Amino acid sequence: MISSETLRRYPFFGLLSDEQLKAIAMIGEEKTYPKDTILFKENTAATRLYLLLEGDIDLVYSGGGEGAVVNALVGSIAPGEVLGVSSLIEPYTFISSARPTTPIKVVEIDSLALRALAEVDARLGYILMRNIAVAVLERLKYTQVELAAARA
Amino acid sequence: MISSETLRRYPFFGLLSDEQLKAIAMIGEEKTYPKDTILFKENTAATRLYLLLEGDIDLVYSGGGEGAVVNALVGSIAPGEVLGVSSLIEPYTFISSARPTTPIKVVEIDSLALRALAEVDARLGYILMRNIAVAVLERLKYTQVELAAARA
Repeated sequence: MISSETLRRYPFFGLLSDEQLKAIAMIGEEKTYPKDTILFKENTAATRLYLLLEGDIDLVYSGGGEGAVVNALVGSIAPGEVLGVSSLIEPYTFISSARPTTPIKVVEIDSLALRALAEVDARLGYILMRNIAVAVLERLKYTQVELAAARA
Repeated sequence: MISSETLRRYPFFGLLSDEQLKAIAMIGEEKTYPKDTILFKENTAATRLYLLLEGDIDLVYSGGGEGAVVNALVGSIAPGEVLGVSSLIEPYTFISSARPTTPIKVVEIDSLALRALAEVDARLGYILMRNIAVAVLERLKYTQVELAAARA
């Protein structure tokens, strides 16, 4: 459990009511991880949404399967941004791996519990998924730019 | 206005109730466009969500700005899929251009009216934005694969 004040500071949670923030804070935990851990791994079950409080994280994509040689940088996460968006999007499987490039502090939110809150409170669900869509579209924009550059 | 039966056939609208489908059908229009039109243009205001009924569409990205030479293929849309997802995601600006590669038939949905429905019926909004997030994540997966291949 964390304080709802921690969440309130971040635009991602901006439109939620006090009550909704408290419910989410109840299922959140603050954690720290050293540099170069794997926070989550591509192709594994996505069960947590993360809010990055401190540090920086690279998102890398293997290029397909275990034997793949490529580890393409497909995104970078700065403080205040969420990652693990796949934990709220079917089929709930990470599509890239997250590697902190510095020591990090995050809020981890149990995504199954978060989805349960959204089922009960559809308004929470609507706001949450709108914000998740914004985060995914940002990532898509970034990879489009990189793809166009790679092909130029 | 279109028939709600038209929408019901597509997974994108699968979880919505009869009443919700009827409300969306009221603000939908069926249209056809010839091959090689520009259905929508990158960096313009996104005011319509499209469901592709027949034909094929390429999504292309200029690589940044008017003078850019690259026109990278960043997605392809097949019948049954939606496009114009940016019409439901802030800042409501298309991030790529849509070019039919065959004559197409689409359902066009006024996204301002659709967002108004979601404001009134948060459950509709929650389901809609979950499905939009799935569509954007699919696009992100595709560009990640292409990016990793381009860098291999």
